[in-house]
Amino acid sequence: MKNNAAKIERAHLEDSLGDTAAEMYQLIRRLYPICRSITGNGVRQTLKILQEYVPLVIHEVPSGTPVFDWTVPKEWNIRDAYIKNSKGEKIVDFQQCNLHVLGYSLPINKTVSLDELKPHTFTLPERPDWIPYRTSYYREDWGFCLSHNQLQELRDDEYEVFIDASLENGHLTYGEYFLQGQTDAEVLISTHICHPSLANDNLSGIAVAAFMAKHLGSLPRRYSYRFLFTPGTIGSITWLSLNEAQTSRIKHGLVMACLGDPGKVTYKKSRQGNAEIDRAVIQALKDSGDAYDVLEFSPYGYDERQFCSPGFNLPVGCFMRTPHGEFPEYHTSADNLQFIRSEYLGDSLAKCLAVLDVLENNQTYVNQYPKCEPQLGKRGLYRAVGGDRSRAPYELAMLWVLNLSDGNHTLLDIAERSGLDFGFVKTAADKLLQHDLLKESSLS
Amino acid sequence: MKNNAAKIERAHLEDSLGDTAAEMYQLIRRLYPICRSITGNGVRQTLKILQEYVPLVIHEVPSGTPVFDWTVPKEWNIRDAYIKNSKGEKIVDFQQCNLHVLGYSLPINKTVSLDELKPHTFTLPERPDWIPYRTSYYREDWGFCLSHNQLQELRDDEYEVFIDASLENGHLTYGEYFLQGQTDAEVLISTHICHPSLANDNLSGIAVAAFMAKHLGSLPRRYSYRFLFTPGTIGSITWLSLNEAQTSRIKHGLVMACLGDPGKVTYKKSRQGNAEIDRAVIQALKDSGDAYDVLEFSPYGYDERQFCSPGFNLPVGCFMRTPHGEFPEYHTSADNLQFIRSEYLGDSLAKCLAVLDVLENNQTYVNQYPKCEPQLGKRGLYRAVGGDRSRAPYELAMLWVLNLSDGNHTLLDIAERSGLDFGFVKTAADKLLQHDLLKESSLS
Amino acid sequence: MKNNAAKIERAHLEDSLGDTAAEMYQLIRRLYPICRSITGNGVRQTLKILQEYVPLVIHEVPSGTPVFDWTVPKEWNIRDAYIKNSKGEKIVDFQQCNLHVLGYSLPINKTVSLDELKPHTFTLPERPDWIPYRTSYYREDWGFCLSHNQLQELRDDEYEVFIDASLENGHLTYGEYFLQGQTDAEVLISTHICHPSLANDNLSGIAVAAFMAKHLGSLPRRYSYRFLFTPGTIGSITWLSLNEAQTSRIKHGLVMACLGDPGKVTYKKSRQGNAEIDRAVIQALKDSGDAYDVLEFSPYGYDERQFCSPGFNLPVGCFMRTPHGEFPEYHTSADNLQFIRSEYLGDSLAKCLAVLDVLENNQTYVNQYPKCEPQLGKRGLYRAVGGDRSRAPYELAMLWVLNLSDGNHTLLDIAERSGLDFGFVKTAADKLLQHDLLKESSLS
Repeated sequence: MKNNAAKIERAHLEDSLGDTAAEMYQLIRRLYPICRSITGNGVRQTLKILQEYVPLVIHEVPSGTPVFDWTVPKEWNIRDAYIKNSKGEKIVDFQQCNLHVLGYSLPINKTVSLDELKPHTFTLPERPDWIPYRTSYYREDWGFCLSHNQLQELRDDEYEVFIDASLENGHLTYGEYFLQGQTDAEVLISTHICHPSLANDNLSGIAVAAFMAKHLGSLPRRYSYRFLFTPGTIGSITWLSLNEAQTSRIKHGLVMACLGDPGKVTYKKSRQGNAEIDRAVIQALKDSGDAYDVLEFSPYGYDERQFCSPGFNLPVGCFMRTPHGEFPEYHTSADNLQFIRSEYLGDSLAKCLAVLDVLENNQTYVNQYPKCEPQLGKRGLYRAVGGDRSRAPYELAMLWVLNLSDGNHTLLDIAERSGLDFGFVKTAADKLLQHDLLKESSLS
Repeated sequence: MKNNAAKIERAHLEDSLGDTAAEMYQLIRRLYPICRSITGNGVRQTLKILQEYVPLVIHEVPSGTPVFDWTVPKEWNIRDAYIKNSKGEKIVDFQQCNLHVLGYSLPINKTVSLDELKPHTFTLPERPDWIPYRTSYYREDWGFCLSHNQLQELRDDEYEVFIDASLENGHLTYGEYFLQGQTDAEVLISTHICHPSLANDNLSGIAVAAFMAKHLGSLPRRYSYRFLFTPGTIGSITWLSLNEAQTSRIKHGLVMACLGDPGKVTYKKSRQGNAEIDRAVIQALKDSGDAYDVLEFSPYGYDERQFCSPGFNLPVGCFMRTPHGEFPEYHTSADNLQFIRSEYLGDSLAKCLAVLDVLENNQTYVNQYPKCEPQLGKRGLYRAVGGDRSRAPYELAMLWVLNLSDGNHTLLDIAERSGLDFGFVKTAADKLLQHDLLKESSLS
Repeated sequence: MKNNAAKIERAHLEDSLGDTAAEMYQLIRRLYPICRSITGNGVRQTLKILQEYVPLVIHEVPSGTPVFDWTVPKEWNIRDAYIKNSKGEKIVDFQQCNLHVLGYSLPINKTVSLDELKPHTFTLPERPDWIPYRTSYYREDWGFCLSHNQLQELRDDEYEVFIDASLENGHLTYGEYFLQGQTDAEVLISTHICHPSLANDNLSGIAVAAFMAKHLGSLPRRYSYRFLFTPGTIGSITWLSLNEAQTSRIKHGLVMACLGDPGKVTYKKSRQGNAEIDRAVIQALKDSGDAYDVLEFSPYGYDERQFCSPGFNLPVGCFMRTPHGEFPEYHTSADNLQFIRSEYLGDSLAKCLAVLDVLENNQTYVNQYPKCEPQLGKRGLYRAVGGDRSRAPYELAMLWVLNLSDGNHTLLDIAERSGLDFGFVKTAADKLLQHDLLKESSLS
């Protein structure tokens, strides 16, 4: 493997980050109105738009397909829905906000009393202006989500409830984009695409993943990359079921979600807890100089639940800004286009690429002069005048790389032990390679 | 082994805890006046009373029996003792307080001057009202313990010192109660019975151990339990010497002492330091929600010194409230029936039973659906409406158990890693077992 | 190996510490005026003076000798140097301060303008009164170091620059002192001797090392000791190159530097990080009761850089007071005889000897009565009266030694786990050995 390959030019990206961030926001603006669910035409429409950015393959898996302990569900499609009062006024209208309908609602068309209606409504009393997001994928039901204020205003009346939806055999749809690298070892990037008009959760994750894919496509890569755009839970279960034999190629992975809010970046570790991906993310976040949080693994969250189930135990963590459930707008109509900002999307993308930069460059080298220090001065790599300390930090990085390059330490090991930025360690290693003071370890 | 066996019903106990606590206090009140020592009739009388509660076996080991580096000492019995002044007034009287006589005093009956008497007296100048507790088991001597105020009042006079004691070949007496469980693997509970009228040290330990034994007797048990009521040091050495071959059955153990004082529970770890008993105690104490202390092992203290000697190195910790020497009343006449309270005895018992509950239920299970999560919803184990978070804590416990039940994690491991209460984890595991989502590991 | 051998009598030393400290200061006073460099007569003169204290062997290695990636350089000698202004006034004079000449300056004798002179001058603008110490060992150049005030006063003028130096094939000179012990296992003590008039860095290290050697010579020793007085970097590289085959004998080592300043002792760990030397130094510093710092290894500093290069990875740490670069006087004319004090030299020596005391006595013993405690009382090693706590600390040390002497714990392990002073643990072990309760492990 060539050491000059697989270098992700983060600096170049950062120059153009303003543009990229704006493009991500524009993509989210296009996707926002679509009514997505775990199956159906909203997902297809979303993936089709993503194909304008990355040439992903769209897979269709028939309803009824057994996937481990689950079954691919019927396909749900919705065209219209409303509640009308006895004057014929639409008091709740799906066309205004697709959160109004309980996800996977059965079709309905009848007149009910207020008492009959109420058990089929969902509100947020503590946030009376907001519409909650609710679903009933696996128990057949119908229902409406509305603001608590709306519900409070409803008088004793006859209400026409109308949901023009279908729940029929069809397909589960997901997108997959594979980028071959120098090796077959894979980095998995997975993001959920099953939510309707919710911006941060998870159009932000979709947009950042899509632009990561776009960016990586133009670069040399040590690793192969596999991007999954799947409905949450059932989508990753379906993919794992259909691709079980090849999961051993996955060396590192990230689930991406909630990447456009103003919170600091939060990384939730893989079940393994000290996998290379876990260490690479923490190193990249530390090097960023920005505040960040690291959470231990727990089996609740996004699709890392499936990738980290004990039968797979893949080294897959979850890269977020504010974690699910910890921002009040979570799963409500307030998670909208105003809640997210392009600058946060850009920051999320830059940090993800910095993580991949660590993975791509995390080689093991062997010092060719392991007995005492090699004489850096005669190669122009060391201060000429003893006592001149201006080049000390630069020299220190080289000394660390030489000292720990015994074949048992990767550059990430060296960055961790020295406390130096990964990029600084990598630059020092490159310099030493140029002067034949290091060789790439044949083991790595 | 059946998974519904070996369940200690802590809840049931707590209902009746008020009664049990009062019964323990009553037992202590009966035992308090008896003059116990490391041998003799006080020990026999004490064990006989304990037989009213648990059918323990009383062992008699002859004086002179070699037990490792020690020898079973002569048996000491005392009937009466006093110091009289020249007016014939009893100024120190064994009948009023059995601490007045130095433990293992030789018999004496003579008249001495104050100067001759003084080297044979023991007082506590810093606590002038209290009588200290002193012994001289292994050097033949005679002496009296009295309050410092009493000593100060003694004038130059002739004193009649009288100790009607015998130190003769006889026996060392100890009690043992064995409860067979489903397996021969044993939990050892050991407590010292050699102290005269000292309530906390250690009638409290004796009472809690006796009621633990009583309680366990009525329950199904995975483990066998062995209760030892022995004189300190020489008693445990004697038991270990006579039972060396079967010590390998001891999988967990607790030495119990000082369990009636108002202090928080203190656990001193076994020499192994991270044995299952150490972890089980810490988990149970954490789950109690009350403050507690954990001390690292040290080779000073109670009979854990012998159980944790390097030739045995058994996983035996020490369960106390305030540690020996850290309450001012320790080894003085102030460690009396007023110093202890039934509510603290009850709390100690409840916490010990909670520890055994962890041990009994600390099984290893194997997730039968290790690839991705099993579909809890179709089994009625998961919220029907996405977004409804009311059942989240309950679901989280199930997800943790499923995620870590790969055959390598016990329920205690899962409680520790998840931060959840052991009981909560156990309940989740039971639920999953009912639905055949788990199987008991054949390894455990 | 006899357990009564190899005991360094620290107490005896401390009695005479006042004298020894004054002698160290006197030695430094003699060595201070000499112009040392990495080669040349200043080094020879220094080693000759050291021979008055310890019978070290002086080695001469010819210029041009290849030593790993380096080559022994030409020998540099200087006799005189100055800058004269056009009035013939010596405005910079080597005779007044040997720091004035850039180390390894080429000879020069010419008249230059101020503009031509300036690039060959070195000053410290932030410390305008102090003369910096600068060298150019490996790039041929000439130059003067002067105070910034001096430089500021220079007017446009013609200056006579004169350096009467020679840079010719010759030798690199170093001193070595070997003290055979009971075994061939070696402790390495290394200190750099290449600096001109700088008192703390490193005449202090030279003096402490010399008096350590003197002191050890008169004592029984388990270990052999090797003292190296070498020029920095090239000296240790040369020694390692010439003695590569025997480096495996080095079991522990210290580089000694900057030991006369008022700062607390700082220990920089070896690359191994948890070697016995690392633990022994930390134990001795803890036991001293004084404040101290411990630094993790880094590949920048003194000759531990070479001893800890990956091809050797020897357990060699660095023993200092204030680390290089962290006191303002570092590498300036202010690192003079006023900066250091005999009491700090004495303290440094005492602490180094305490470290060696730990190493010498860090044996592994086996408890001969591992099952239960042996009966200390019958051997007069335990309180006769139960309840008498005056001897408790002493007894506790014996109980710790007995409890952990299972053949797997050294006395240092026991001191670390018990929190007791090493000396206390050692005294307890000696007592137990006298009573045949311990035997020395045949493994140690």
